[in-house]
Amino acid sequence: MKVYFDNAATTAMDDRVIEAMLPFMKSHFGNPSSVHSHGREVRNAIEKSRKKVAELLNATPAEIFFTSGGTEADNTALVCGVETHGITHAISSPIEHHAVLHTLEVLEKKGQIKLSLLDVNSKGEIDLGQLEELLKANPNSLVSLMHANNEIGNLNDLEKIGELAREYGAFFHSDTVQTMGHYAHDLKNLPVDAIVAGGHKFHGPKGSGFLYVRKDKKIHPFIHGGAQERNMRGGTENVIGIIGIAKALELAYEDMAGHKAQVEKVKKHFIEKLTAEIPGVEFNGLSADLDKSLYTVLNVSLPPSEANRGMLLFNLDLEGISASGGSACSSGATVGSHVLRALNHNPERDSVRFSFSRFNTLEDVDYTIGKLKELYTVEV
Amino acid sequence: MKVYFDNAATTAMDDRVIEAMLPFMKSHFGNPSSVHSHGREVRNAIEKSRKKVAELLNATPAEIFFTSGGTEADNTALVCGVETHGITHAISSPIEHHAVLHTLEVLEKKGQIKLSLLDVNSKGEIDLGQLEELLKANPNSLVSLMHANNEIGNLNDLEKIGELAREYGAFFHSDTVQTMGHYAHDLKNLPVDAIVAGGHKFHGPKGSGFLYVRKDKKIHPFIHGGAQERNMRGGTENVIGIIGIAKALELAYEDMAGHKAQVEKVKKHFIEKLTAEIPGVEFNGLSADLDKSLYTVLNVSLPPSEANRGMLLFNLDLEGISASGGSACSSGATVGSHVLRALNHNPERDSVRFSFSRFNTLEDVDYTIGKLKELYTVEV
Repeated sequence: MKVYFDNAATTAMDDRVIEAMLPFMKSHFGNPSSVHSHGREVRNAIEKSRKKVAELLNATPAEIFFTSGGTEADNTALVCGVETHGITHAISSPIEHHAVLHTLEVLEKKGQIKLSLLDVNSKGEIDLGQLEELLKANPNSLVSLMHANNEIGNLNDLEKIGELAREYGAFFHSDTVQTMGHYAHDLKNLPVDAIVAGGHKFHGPKGSGFLYVRKDKKIHPFIHGGAQERNMRGGTENVIGIIGIAKALELAYEDMAGHKAQVEKVKKHFIEKLTAEIPGVEFNGLSADLDKSLYTVLNVSLPPSEANRGMLLFNLDLEGISASGGSACSSGATVGSHVLRALNHNPERDSVRFSFSRFNTLEDVDYTIGKLKELYTVEV
Repeated sequence: MKVYFDNAATTAMDDRVIEAMLPFMKSHFGNPSSVHSHGREVRNAIEKSRKKVAELLNATPAEIFFTSGGTEADNTALVCGVETHGITHAISSPIEHHAVLHTLEVLEKKGQIKLSLLDVNSKGEIDLGQLEELLKANPNSLVSLMHANNEIGNLNDLEKIGELAREYGAFFHSDTVQTMGHYAHDLKNLPVDAIVAGGHKFHGPKGSGFLYVRKDKKIHPFIHGGAQERNMRGGTENVIGIIGIAKALELAYEDMAGHKAQVEKVKKHFIEKLTAEIPGVEFNGLSADLDKSLYTVLNVSLPPSEANRGMLLFNLDLEGISASGGSACSSGATVGSHVLRALNHNPERDSVRFSFSRFNTLEDVDYTIGKLKELYTVEV
């Protein structure tokens, strides 16, 4: 049996997304910047995709810029947000994705900003009081705090963070890669200035993404070249990527409540069964709290075990179970998780992130927990 | 009849490229950074693609970095070339692609470099003597000169430019977007430090590209995030884009001489017939010189005509003929061509770029010239 529990790293493409992309591989091949018929039909499709994304997010098409993914979108918001708005101080947290942390660290190293990182407690929670103090002391800051953590699933309250950012005149960017397509974002009412998406996190194609930037917080481009994306991103558009991400978002919004209910059932079953079957199991961050974490992510901390230490993912893989030990985007790295380190996670225990999609079943859970039980019984 | 003569803007995908991509849309969906089986099969495919590209170009896999396209690759080479190597002076030309010109202009505006643009004559030719003077006066320069011009097709002598660059210790980047897949690049022997590719210019997918950087001229990343591309480009890889561009390059190299002969026949026929049928026709740049220009590009300057003035592309489009008036990547812009302006092209004359691929036929040429003749006879 093959079980895929690494949906926070990437998801399988929806067949309907592939169907939508195929005509733009096979016949509609024009360059959207060309004014002739071959170009116009593709330009129309791109602008329809932009309009669709904008509608779903309650934004305007002029606020949506297609990118090569969430990471490029984060880089654009941070680098160009700082440069365009003359920002010299940024506030973030040590458990942000590397697309945010590394980008801010580079800006700091170049002397463009001073970087303040909020404290996180052992559950990965930040303190809004500390955020307010920093904002008060540093007018014209950039705040970058993710909507949900990709490893431990903790949800931040964008509403409250955004209100504080507005009160103190900060530029508020949020890495929403893990929530886009899984939670509704109403950008007319949500007080954020920039959010991002990566299509492959919600059954769209890898290499697709978009950046939303609020109209009155415009930034200059990150990639320079032609006049594409209203002069905001040079380079011939990734047409199939754009068609794909818009279709994937449309499908996600079509039955968001249904998907949520279905995936939540998988996660709930996983928590209950794991707690019953594996003594000493714990959950990292808030991931076992259904109201305070992504319904797609469960980060499990297993009791120290000589047989599995450092080998758990490998052992699961041998049984056909794909899960992740750290961040989706750097699970190949052997450096361990900067998120779990920030939470002072006991290095004697092994942690596994199981992450779910609507393609998972309760049988996937039962099979996985059966195998975990075997792996942890050998020991006794 | 539909005729597509805008292949320098973008090409139709080869069916074999689509076939190679499909399994990575339908079943092999893992994140290449994941260590489990779903990830490993995709990681293997990416590294095989990198190895293939490196082999074809006589480079090493460690010198090839996949990007979202030629523009991102150009931006990376220029921005990070300047920053990594402490460069404060750049040499380029006024007829470079905007991906190069705008990027260098931004670096100049930020005060990071002084930018010197070479003179071009009315045929778009640069003077290597002037290049040498500038290199002599400015040690540790960056030189960015394209292999072939996307509008007028002029080929630069990379060998000679590169030798000068080496002699004076410059970092030499060349925008090779228009020649990649059409001409062989032997990077063991060609004295360039960085070249780029965009997959959709040689029957691969849009949104795919790569950057080659010579081993001993390493640069730091442009997009920060995860450890992808050996820490050179954060962000989950555009897997289908990578599979596609490598396959397209493989196909291009499989029969490069055959394709060249076939496309050259189309171009030659176009020149001969046009010269015979339309009195007063001229050719911009060196595009009518088969040895000194891209075999894929012919830039035609037509005599002043009240009926077609500013409407020629539109009139051709009405007849089903897709061609371009300026740069591929900004043909939607109404600002006209910066290349033709640099050549002091007579604005009373209309210019059209016809650009060819192996999917074009002599019938395409005959049909197009028949229609041009009609358009230009009305006048008399």
